[in-house]
Amino acid sequence: MSNINVGIIGFGTVGAGTVEILFENRDIILNRVGSEIIVKKIADLDTQSDRGFPIDPDLLTTDAMEIIHDPQIDIVVELMGGKEKAKDYILKAMENGKHVVTANKALLAEHGEEIYRAAEQFGVGVAFEASVGGGIPIIRALKDGLSANRISTIMGILNGTSNYILTRMTQEGLPYSEAVKEAIELGYAEAPPTLDVDGTDAAHKLAILISIIYGTPVPFDDIYREGIENLVPEDIRFAGQFGYCIKMLAITRNLGDRIEARVHPTMVSLDHIMANVNGAYNAIYVEGDFVGPNLYYGLGAGRRPTGSAVVSDIIYLARQLCNGISKPMPPLAHASPQEKEIPIQPMETLRAAYYFRFSANDRPGVLSKISGILGDHEISISNVIQKGRKVNGSVPVVMLTHEARESSVSKALSRLDSLDVLTDKTMVIRVEGE
Amino acid sequence: MSNINVGIIGFGTVGAGTVEILFENRDIILNRVGSEIIVKKIADLDTQSDRGFPIDPDLLTTDAMEIIHDPQIDIVVELMGGKEKAKDYILKAMENGKHVVTANKALLAEHGEEIYRAAEQFGVGVAFEASVGGGIPIIRALKDGLSANRISTIMGILNGTSNYILTRMTQEGLPYSEAVKEAIELGYAEAPPTLDVDGTDAAHKLAILISIIYGTPVPFDDIYREGIENLVPEDIRFAGQFGYCIKMLAITRNLGDRIEARVHPTMVSLDHIMANVNGAYNAIYVEGDFVGPNLYYGLGAGRRPTGSAVVSDIIYLARQLCNGISKPMPPLAHASPQEKEIPIQPMETLRAAYYFRFSANDRPGVLSKISGILGDHEISISNVIQKGRKVNGSVPVVMLTHEARESSVSKALSRLDSLDVLTDKTMVIRVEGE
Repeated sequence: MSNINVGIIGFGTVGAGTVEILFENRDIILNRVGSEIIVKKIADLDTQSDRGFPIDPDLLTTDAMEIIHDPQIDIVVELMGGKEKAKDYILKAMENGKHVVTANKALLAEHGEEIYRAAEQFGVGVAFEASVGGGIPIIRALKDGLSANRISTIMGILNGTSNYILTRMTQEGLPYSEAVKEAIELGYAEAPPTLDVDGTDAAHKLAILISIIYGTPVPFDDIYREGIENLVPEDIRFAGQFGYCIKMLAITRNLGDRIEARVHPTMVSLDHIMANVNGAYNAIYVEGDFVGPNLYYGLGAGRRPTGSAVVSDIIYLARQLCNGISKPMPPLAHASPQEKEIPIQPMETLRAAYYFRFSANDRPGVLSKISGILGDHEISISNVIQKGRKVNGSVPVVMLTHEARESSVSKALSRLDSLDVLTDKTMVIRVEGE
Repeated sequence: MSNINVGIIGFGTVGAGTVEILFENRDIILNRVGSEIIVKKIADLDTQSDRGFPIDPDLLTTDAMEIIHDPQIDIVVELMGGKEKAKDYILKAMENGKHVVTANKALLAEHGEEIYRAAEQFGVGVAFEASVGGGIPIIRALKDGLSANRISTIMGILNGTSNYILTRMTQEGLPYSEAVKEAIELGYAEAPPTLDVDGTDAAHKLAILISIIYGTPVPFDDIYREGIENLVPEDIRFAGQFGYCIKMLAITRNLGDRIEARVHPTMVSLDHIMANVNGAYNAIYVEGDFVGPNLYYGLGAGRRPTGSAVVSDIIYLARQLCNGISKPMPPLAHASPQEKEIPIQPMETLRAAYYFRFSANDRPGVLSKISGILGDHEISISNVIQKGRKVNGSVPVVMLTHEARESSVSKALSRLDSLDVLTDKTMVIRVEGE
């Protein structure tokens, strides 16, 4: 088999990592593929910056079309980010018969269907391991390694920035703003890190994972998102006293005729293996009907780990080209998208356990008032911590509940928040694995 | 594409799990492959026992040759275990043009080369995800997901039986014999569980992982093996005081011109994510040059998880048949086995940190004698615990060392063990990640 020619659109962090691997590990890649993988062209508006390794200027262009219309290029790698332009490039490349690798989670989560349809139409492969979990090969695990299973649950720490911030708040007791500042200084977060901390980035990744489980894109906007911005170290400490830590989780669960799909700060038992996933690491916990619980763990972002995932996709497609496959694996690894789109259940109907931190006046009868209203809404309390110590003239009353319905919790809280015994808005955190 | 016909040789625990999945998840498998996967024939000497689900008696035969010579069968699944007979069946099936799935780690570790050569010769695929880590798709991760990386280190908890025993010794302070008894009663171990506790099973699995990293079989007999039979709860408690737990680890490390390959009880920092892998779980920790640290975690044995891995292999091969691949992926995922066999370094040249528990007479000058002899052999001590409490007339003196050479340790210990100040053989445990 002759060489495989690759064109790369986007020479930022991940693009540079990708090219660096293709250069530096050229010998092992040749050995694993059986053909040389050649970087034929790299398109980026910035052709001048130092990427940390020598690069032949002739490889660089500012015009992505040079790649998309180059008849010698077999695989186009889209690493520019953004949605509309990236989508146009990918669709044109597919139309020209090129296989595509992309790390673009926002694009796939919001416009995946269009891209998957084009890949099938033009008979090309599309691979996107780097779109979720950085270097962790979780997409392949779901498409291939766990393909015998009905997946019942996924719980993911899918955003390294927010996990880093929560880890620092937990281990050092830092307030949110301090931890964010540190993350920005260390390059773990952009300024401001909005999409990382508000759950959007994790929700994009969750949408991609769900689409692989069921072989159908999901309505991204229906995924519930809640950020970590309102967490305070006090909640993390109380969680610890109950035997939990707080993680930003992306959760999906198969409920039969519908699914859960939600991203929010979550209390996780300190015994759970997810509790030990700290710093900038990501992890994906998967339960299948036969395989049982599985965990996949690694660095969730960064030039080198994400580059590793991109190059594994290039190798995957190159191997298929070398082995003369006549029909590439369908984008979502389902031969025929026969299964209907599975609706996401509205958040009001969720059943979960809850953590509440009430800011209450330090007066007799407060606990009875709170628990009375919770009882009216069939919310049953499993644990209470009440300490007499005054904070700004009020005391924290902290509770864990048994499983309750989200709509009942909303109703009870709106009644409670209007009482004059509560001095501040109540903090609510959902609890996994009661 | 027409149906894919599968013949299964061996209808024991894993065989039954495999058939159960193919029956129970038939709909999702059809959807993922695009063709029906049909169990055409099952061979086992026992055709009578209840496997827990209804089975058409016409599917059963006592003669494996009926499968191997059935022209309609596309994929032969070898789950009978044992070495010679299983090898003959696999080679004959390949000769007949059949793709092969096997879970037979002992066979692959000791006779892999013959099988891989036959697969290439006859142009068939061979898949063996179930041979390592039960339901964890670690083979695919190394072949495919991490294919862009030079793998520098693997540390695996590859035997669920020994991990269960160590977990019970750690959490309940049980002596080894009690923990083994419990494991046998619960069905986690056979009686006696020799190959599980002496490191042979983990070494088989390590040999397979190493062969995938380098694309070449390894000399199995050169892998160092040491069992968990001599561990006592006292060592586990001392390890805890130093901030470590004890795990049965299979370790390989790339040293450039040679590799480490060893299986033995190992002290692992309590901060390391491997420290939280308990009970019958397996985990494989992998470091690649670009991806960094990765962890793969799940149930390492049992009918359902192992069946999940076998069926994922069947699906993998069936997808290739459906997609008209002209050349299956080489068995070790290296296009050309150009790399020379990488020698395993002799254990004497290992450099590691060590834990020693000396049983010493409670007399003045003992510590000075011990540390003097260690110093003579350039073994430098990092931590000491000496408690005055007498155990059978002697006191334990416990030490951690900095990195030292294994040969120096052997020499120092043989001098020490001949001293009359030591009342019993010294316990030695290697320490990871000093």
